[in-house]
Amino acid sequence: MKILKDINKANDIKNVSPDCMDDLAQEIRNFILEKVSKNGGHLASNLGVVELTMALHLCMNFPEDKLIFDVGHQAYTHKILTGRKNDFDTLRKFDGLSGFPKRDESDADSFNTGHSSTSISAAVGMVAARELRGSNEKICAVIGDGSMTGGMVYEAFNQLSRIKSNLVIILNDNEMSIDKNVGGVSRYLNKLRVGEPYNDLKAGVENILKSIPDVGEKMAKGLKRSKDSLKTLFVKGSFVEEMGITYIGPVDGHNIKEMTRTFRKAFKLNKPILVHVKTVKGAGYKYAEKYPEHFHGVDPFLLETGKSVNRKTRATNTDVFGKKLCELGAKDNRIVAITAAMAQGTGVNYFQKKFPERTFDVGIAEQHAVTFAAGLAAGGYIPVVAIYSSFLQRAYDQILHDVCLQGLHVIFAIDRSGLVGRDGETHQGIYDDAYLADMPGLKVIAPKNASELCAAFEYAAKCDGPVAIKYSRGFAYRGLATNKDFSDESAEIISGSIEIEEKNSSLDDKKDTSGEIKKRVAIIACGNMVEESVKLRDRLISESNIEPLFVSGRFIKPIDEELLKNLAGKFDIIAFAEETCEAGSYGERAASIILDELSKMCSGEKFDTGCSKENIRYPKILNFCIKQDMVRQGSVDELRNELGISADMMYETIVKNL
Amino acid sequence: MKILKDINKANDIKNVSPDCMDDLAQEIRNFILEKVSKNGGHLASNLGVVELTMALHLCMNFPEDKLIFDVGHQAYTHKILTGRKNDFDTLRKFDGLSGFPKRDESDADSFNTGHSSTSISAAVGMVAARELRGSNEKICAVIGDGSMTGGMVYEAFNQLSRIKSNLVIILNDNEMSIDKNVGGVSRYLNKLRVGEPYNDLKAGVENILKSIPDVGEKMAKGLKRSKDSLKTLFVKGSFVEEMGITYIGPVDGHNIKEMTRTFRKAFKLNKPILVHVKTVKGAGYKYAEKYPEHFHGVDPFLLETGKSVNRKTRATNTDVFGKKLCELGAKDNRIVAITAAMAQGTGVNYFQKKFPERTFDVGIAEQHAVTFAAGLAAGGYIPVVAIYSSFLQRAYDQILHDVCLQGLHVIFAIDRSGLVGRDGETHQGIYDDAYLADMPGLKVIAPKNASELCAAFEYAAKCDGPVAIKYSRGFAYRGLATNKDFSDESAEIISGSIEIEEKNSSLDDKKDTSGEIKKRVAIIACGNMVEESVKLRDRLISESNIEPLFVSGRFIKPIDEELLKNLAGKFDIIAFAEETCEAGSYGERAASIILDELSKMCSGEKFDTGCSKENIRYPKILNFCIKQDMVRQGSVDELRNELGISADMMYETIVKNL
Repeated sequence: MKILKDINKANDIKNVSPDCMDDLAQEIRNFILEKVSKNGGHLASNLGVVELTMALHLCMNFPEDKLIFDVGHQAYTHKILTGRKNDFDTLRKFDGLSGFPKRDESDADSFNTGHSSTSISAAVGMVAARELRGSNEKICAVIGDGSMTGGMVYEAFNQLSRIKSNLVIILNDNEMSIDKNVGGVSRYLNKLRVGEPYNDLKAGVENILKSIPDVGEKMAKGLKRSKDSLKTLFVKGSFVEEMGITYIGPVDGHNIKEMTRTFRKAFKLNKPILVHVKTVKGAGYKYAEKYPEHFHGVDPFLLETGKSVNRKTRATNTDVFGKKLCELGAKDNRIVAITAAMAQGTGVNYFQKKFPERTFDVGIAEQHAVTFAAGLAAGGYIPVVAIYSSFLQRAYDQILHDVCLQGLHVIFAIDRSGLVGRDGETHQGIYDDAYLADMPGLKVIAPKNASELCAAFEYAAKCDGPVAIKYSRGFAYRGLATNKDFSDESAEIISGSIEIEEKNSSLDDKKDTSGEIKKRVAIIACGNMVEESVKLRDRLISESNIEPLFVSGRFIKPIDEELLKNLAGKFDIIAFAEETCEAGSYGERAASIILDELSKMCSGEKFDTGCSKENIRYPKILNFCIKQDMVRQGSVDELRNELGISADMMYETIVKNL
Repeated sequence: MKILKDINKANDIKNVSPDCMDDLAQEIRNFILEKVSKNGGHLASNLGVVELTMALHLCMNFPEDKLIFDVGHQAYTHKILTGRKNDFDTLRKFDGLSGFPKRDESDADSFNTGHSSTSISAAVGMVAARELRGSNEKICAVIGDGSMTGGMVYEAFNQLSRIKSNLVIILNDNEMSIDKNVGGVSRYLNKLRVGEPYNDLKAGVENILKSIPDVGEKMAKGLKRSKDSLKTLFVKGSFVEEMGITYIGPVDGHNIKEMTRTFRKAFKLNKPILVHVKTVKGAGYKYAEKYPEHFHGVDPFLLETGKSVNRKTRATNTDVFGKKLCELGAKDNRIVAITAAMAQGTGVNYFQKKFPERTFDVGIAEQHAVTFAAGLAAGGYIPVVAIYSSFLQRAYDQILHDVCLQGLHVIFAIDRSGLVGRDGETHQGIYDDAYLADMPGLKVIAPKNASELCAAFEYAAKCDGPVAIKYSRGFAYRGLATNKDFSDESAEIISGSIEIEEKNSSLDDKKDTSGEIKKRVAIIACGNMVEESVKLRDRLISESNIEPLFVSGRFIKPIDEELLKNLAGKFDIIAFAEETCEAGSYGERAASIILDELSKMCSGEKFDTGCSKENIRYPKILNFCIKQDMVRQGSVDELRNELGISADMMYETIVKNL
């Protein structure tokens, strides 16, 4: 680290001798490898943009200039170069350095990202602000080719032609090659017409082209790929030209000198510029170059072998879903699967392998994914749309307008519902209760364990309207299982019902040995909080001589009004447990039903005039959910502790309230 | 109506002699004009597609074939031709014919629409279903050029190249002209390469071109417009060609014969086809041709003059907002306004006129609108994003991810919140409480009247985080006004607080003349339900000798926990009134706070063992909100009656519960 040691704040890189830049890149790469192999994090994307980020830092000044990383999982080098190098041991940890750009972490981060395809819109907004103010800071968005399938990008492009000043958009292209047959580099260059400054640039760009060794190699692959993709638009002069944008490229994304020269000139043009930079995902680490998907987001691994430190020992909810989907697909050929560029992350890859013709990967395009599913459903098929909870937010209107208002039979497989941990606030799946709460006719199921997860999909396939099944990141829970091998037959779901686990648990008062009436507690847990609440229950039994009634909420929607009403007046404490924000939560809605029933028992009467029936208990409601709007990064256990919803924290709260 | 009288069901049009088609078009046009001038409805868009729809009906069979209208406000001719002619007197009325396509209204309607840019995604889904099934129904999407700015369209286009069978997309172009300078018709035609069937087609298309009289005229206008718009992509051979789509056009959208010939051939090609049809909005009615924006959606009007039957006599909330925004803009030049193609509908037109350089119309692109605003806010400006409640649904993720998680100072002006009436379920603004409920740090204000609407914007401009202000369609309420001329100074908003209207109203018990303790009622109303609830209050006072405590909820978020807690134990009935769905509603959340406070008063104790304090009243909670997920069309008064939230219905419910 002989060069990196002197880089301690923004702009320090400018003091490094040009001859040492490649060495610095190597040091940064080693630094990232060392830290990520220990802590986990996004690897391949970060290794791919080391030189690209360095070149940008040589051309820009921070914090004055504004650099926006689309998705944001490629900002490690940027963080290292802006004074955050020494925080990397805390990367993605509780209270530590975020894995994404964060405005409140450094004034060199100009816009927070996490979801895809937002960077150009944000950049255009900053350009508009700059034009109004008349200032002259540089503004640059870095966007990967994968993000180019998100519709927002086009909405933003529509506004680019109105820009009368500079904006540099870097297309970080790590997948698609140049396709000679349908366009060709020379053809774009011929088509470009940018007047004076361009002439200088042109010579530079042509030199750069000669220096890219792998263009020829990848051409055959690129040809096939670009044919079926919007991405192709961006390496075609005609599109960008027609949108009023100047295209420059491709540039070798691992040649700092060439990039610096190109970027400097691009920043001088008085209009929007798209610079097409070719990078190799995972560059410099052979395992990541070979398996970039595997090294996208990783847990700690051994540098020497690339193998994970903690080997996966149990099935995840994702696995359970993926296998169940295959089973359903084999039984019913109307079942089709839809993923938005995340076949592996969502477990759709199992189905894809078995039923490729019934699997649709639509790219990062959640809106289209959902309405496309609505079309398939209107056409007589049963689409299963598998999207993470936080990414499905992008399709809120489509779920409501295209699926639910029409009552179409679409199944939503909502993975990563609840706390996701180290990716932090943009990825937490804690808003789905609220955003699904009023969806017309939508059933929302939060299965208690792996067996019920399977049963829920079995049930959903038989419904004739929309159903959402939400489950958490991480290992599948096998406790309380009716059937440990997850086959579908025995675990049955009664439509719209809660499940009372202790069938023999009487709702009547019990007296303890001294003849005193015992305190009565009901625990109503949903989804992945069932597992945590079982621990809570066990502790209440063993340490507090309380035998709580244990209920799995199961149907978040419709809520089981009838059974919930039975709980009114019979408990001293009714505790709800769910990993979701408070407003619109199961607990809030269930509590209002229970309390409404209580009010029917007593309403219109003062307590002293007739309502003091012998056996009515007035409950304390404890809604163990997420009472803050935003939850930052940390392990799920740490976050649960912070939020007061770990088994231990819940136990203490209940005991305190008894 | 000599031809139209014989058209009583789908496909009847095929029995009409080709020579009579233009006469039929005239009859349909007269029919639409007659009905819409009486009932109100969408006029210009429907007049524009009479011949286009007829030509499609001559080429398609219903219900076998699938026709999807983007947005859906242009389906009247389709309805007339499919057996719904006689229902037109009920158009947009309660229990009547919908103004949009509805699957449950006719099997000739294959997909419900209402929001923009969904049709191609839905069509691609239907094509996928057809390919899997191996059937051969025709599938066609009709999409206006305005909808082409919505990002979803591009997400759908990305999938078109995978289609191996026919799909016809009709680009209904009623605004943009052909731009010779940057492309030119002949150049597209030269570029098109579709093999055999195309050769026939080409001859046809070239003839059609000669028959369009207005191409030359509009050229100058078109040149300017197409330069700054994504729309231009669709009349450029290169874009559609690169996406694997065959472009045909432009075709005269008022020449039935030519369209029929073109469509027939287009349906025979084994691939996706884009047919570019030029229509005139409002065609055949001079006032609508001249002022298509004005005749987009109209109230009843006089056919002879084009003038509205009911002249507007009072200011709407939209007007009040529009004028207030100008005032704010004059005081603070950081205020900028953003609209998604609805400057007039949202009242942004006032600001636009005064501050054109600070007004941004981004097209139908709500997602971009919000993230663009976030960029402007990050750049030091204060953007006011004015979007209808139901259309803002499209930007759910952007509000959360780009604005709220970063705590940026963006102001959302949410018009059409609550019931909107005759546009029906796709347009009701009844989901915003739930979708905004958990937005981190977002303040949500529902002003009680025009004066407070102004004060709310004044307040929002001074905040330093995100604020949403929601208000209803229709006239601004002037009751309970602190300042009738809507100036900002006197009406003040205390951050996060409810407002108790009767300052002198004691919370203590009152005894009536006979010495009996009087029943006590609290009414907590939000937004436009304040006006309705004032009627309720007045009736309770005059007819039932009840003097309710009247509260304006005002801050939907953050909710005023402190003041709400004061209501616990003091009322027999606490009634909430808000035009919103139940889950996530103000009433549900406020009730849980009040009941929680009550439970603190009594918790852990049986009623008979210590909790029967003299003055505690146990309330019956009445949450007057929307308890069904979906609300169809009707006048707002009719809908309120149906939903039990009119002043009279609320009165009856309260009296019954006393």
